[in-house]
Amino acid sequence: MKVLALNCGSSSLKYQLFEWDNQSVISKGAMDRIGEKASVFSHDGKKDDCSLPNHVQAIELLLQTLQKEGVVASVTDINVVAHRVVHGGQQFAKSVLITDEVVSAIRELSFLAPLHNPANLDGIEAARKGMPNVPQVAVFDTAFHQTMPDYAYRYALPAEWYDKFRVRRYGFHGTSHLYVSKRAAKMLGKPASACNIITLHVGNGVSVAAIRNGVSVDTSMGMTPLEGAIMGTRCGDIDASIPIFMQDLTKRSAKEVYDDMNKRSGMLGITAGRYTDRRDIEKFAADGDEQCKLAMEMECYKLKQYIGKYMATLGTVDAIVFTAGVGENSPTIRGITTSGLEALGIKLDKAINEKTYGYKDCGDVQISAADSKIKVFVIPTNEEIVLVEDAIGVLKGTYADHMNYQYSFL
Amino acid sequence: MKVLALNCGSSSLKYQLFEWDNQSVISKGAMDRIGEKASVFSHDGKKDDCSLPNHVQAIELLLQTLQKEGVVASVTDINVVAHRVVHGGQQFAKSVLITDEVVSAIRELSFLAPLHNPANLDGIEAARKGMPNVPQVAVFDTAFHQTMPDYAYRYALPAEWYDKFRVRRYGFHGTSHLYVSKRAAKMLGKPASACNIITLHVGNGVSVAAIRNGVSVDTSMGMTPLEGAIMGTRCGDIDASIPIFMQDLTKRSAKEVYDDMNKRSGMLGITAGRYTDRRDIEKFAADGDEQCKLAMEMECYKLKQYIGKYMATLGTVDAIVFTAGVGENSPTIRGITTSGLEALGIKLDKAINEKTYGYKDCGDVQISAADSKIKVFVIPTNEEIVLVEDAIGVLKGTYADHMNYQYSFL
Repeated sequence: MKVLALNCGSSSLKYQLFEWDNQSVISKGAMDRIGEKASVFSHDGKKDDCSLPNHVQAIELLLQTLQKEGVVASVTDINVVAHRVVHGGQQFAKSVLITDEVVSAIRELSFLAPLHNPANLDGIEAARKGMPNVPQVAVFDTAFHQTMPDYAYRYALPAEWYDKFRVRRYGFHGTSHLYVSKRAAKMLGKPASACNIITLHVGNGVSVAAIRNGVSVDTSMGMTPLEGAIMGTRCGDIDASIPIFMQDLTKRSAKEVYDDMNKRSGMLGITAGRYTDRRDIEKFAADGDEQCKLAMEMECYKLKQYIGKYMATLGTVDAIVFTAGVGENSPTIRGITTSGLEALGIKLDKAINEKTYGYKDCGDVQISAADSKIKVFVIPTNEEIVLVEDAIGVLKGTYADHMNYQYSFL
Repeated sequence: MKVLALNCGSSSLKYQLFEWDNQSVISKGAMDRIGEKASVFSHDGKKDDCSLPNHVQAIELLLQTLQKEGVVASVTDINVVAHRVVHGGQQFAKSVLITDEVVSAIRELSFLAPLHNPANLDGIEAARKGMPNVPQVAVFDTAFHQTMPDYAYRYALPAEWYDKFRVRRYGFHGTSHLYVSKRAAKMLGKPASACNIITLHVGNGVSVAAIRNGVSVDTSMGMTPLEGAIMGTRCGDIDASIPIFMQDLTKRSAKEVYDDMNKRSGMLGITAGRYTDRRDIEKFAADGDEQCKLAMEMECYKLKQYIGKYMATLGTVDAIVFTAGVGENSPTIRGITTSGLEALGIKLDKAINEKTYGYKDCGDVQISAADSKIKVFVIPTNEEIVLVEDAIGVLKGTYADHMNYQYSFL
């Protein structure tokens, strides 16, 4: 059984071709600058310049290449395609087989994710065209958080904004929170349905989730991925009057201020437009750069507050998980984030924390001290495996929802 | 020594005349609909219709009345006037004697509080005109929070927004948080400088503060009073993209959306424009009204999360304080807010909680159980006494700042 996992952005496409039978990635790569003059196709260690005016031609080139290089004999060797879709709104609480109705629903949800859903749809339509006889499955970033209770997902805004425009908290990074929380349950030696876990996905995008008995009950990203913790270029939580004030103070449009909050804020904003990469920021902070020091302090302080916030949500917590680029690789940020939380039952083993980094190489690691009431784990995320397994499950009819599905990584 | 405490809104004026020597309020009242056709002057149980085109005439009428009714023999019997000023920006970390420079600074800060500072200034200028020989003191709502560290008050926004426009967290309700935290220290039997306290000011406006060793280190309201917990009509924390999306979705102006978030959101918004008064909401929730139930759940859930958030900020917490209209009078809201926090060391004495209400009549009450690790108090707030004492201290030269000042209620 071969699964092609696709993640399409507005000008990019990432893929992994997964051989389920021996649990291995048989080809992976990315296409960038789709729709621009000179596109780039990187795959399995090679890098080619090419011309990719749109996603249809990108998928065509991908399929040709996979056949030409003997990865698959024919397109029909691919048993199922799994698409990452950012916004599933309230309609999609689990992964689904893509039909015309599903395509319409994803399109209709584009107003909630104008940067992402149209690009995801381009990929879906191109893949359906290029592989008309291969089933396609949509895996939504929002689905895992659809278990939130209304008092957590509603905003204290006019009720008709929710009724008419579906203004509410959705949350994102769902496949990542799903994966690492289930892995954490395994490390705790308990079924996921018996574990309370706080998961911190800290990469360029950052989100935190409160997971009670295996299901998401709150998360830091909101109606869009702008809300929550401090991110590479996104501001996270701020006073909602600020965008209004800034339109007035700078005489700029709502769209321009929106772009500022999404693209020129976060770590980039605090460092006055200089850095988003936490490795740079850590290095320059250590060298005494005041803005970098502040950026690190702010990022860690906000994460620490989210841990407290979700401890109050959950009442009791079994484990805290750090994942994604920064979460997996920065002992410093994990150390500062958890410092001072000893009275709340959180204590790192400093030596183990210090030596846990290096992306996927470390595997799942417990970094809390033996006497820490709450376990702290570093678990490298693996969103692709969720896409692959959901697609297999939907294809075989063994997948009902992510709560009861027997993932191989459980 | 007589102190006149004034709190001027855009169309209102509240006053208390305080006799310091015997610690009593010798006259109090309010003027409403200043600048409208028919103004109203309520004082010491009487209510008169009158014509008050502006604050200058309001102050004139107040002084005439106080003399006519024999409360004071002459205006010069008033030793000092204390003005509540909403926004003191970064300039004012404590109460100050009002000079021309102070007036200019308050005016200059009006862009941060366009609804409040101009009204406060109208009151100041009218009082200086009506009592030219009486010293006037400004007491700022923001001053108590000026001890926040930069990583708590800065937003992850472009650095130049802070440099040019002073976009940062300021926090409000400072005199209330100051008063109840100092009273809580007294109940703990320790100096305020040795206490970590979380104060929840829950009225029509709502704010929560984290107080470490007697000084505010974080608070829920931000650049404006819009941010934070859910309020009577304000939304509190939301995704900052929502005001941008709503301008686009409803084709309305930034100003209109701002008004929606300030005046038609919060409890009023959740109940689809029906209620702000928590007594109504509690009653109808008990009767099964779904929107009222949701509004209460959301309000309490958000407060609970702030408790957790600030527990993480403080590391260890001695006491949690409920104050203001709702905090002092709703056993139900206090009960739901603190439920499920037992593992974090918070446990109410249900019987004592249930019987603690009735505005000021209860006095300061410990509502936590004897075995609660963290004490929980209900402390009726008294912002006026802070205005009065700061004014006396500034006048006598005994006030250096609120941290070291020997308040009589300590």
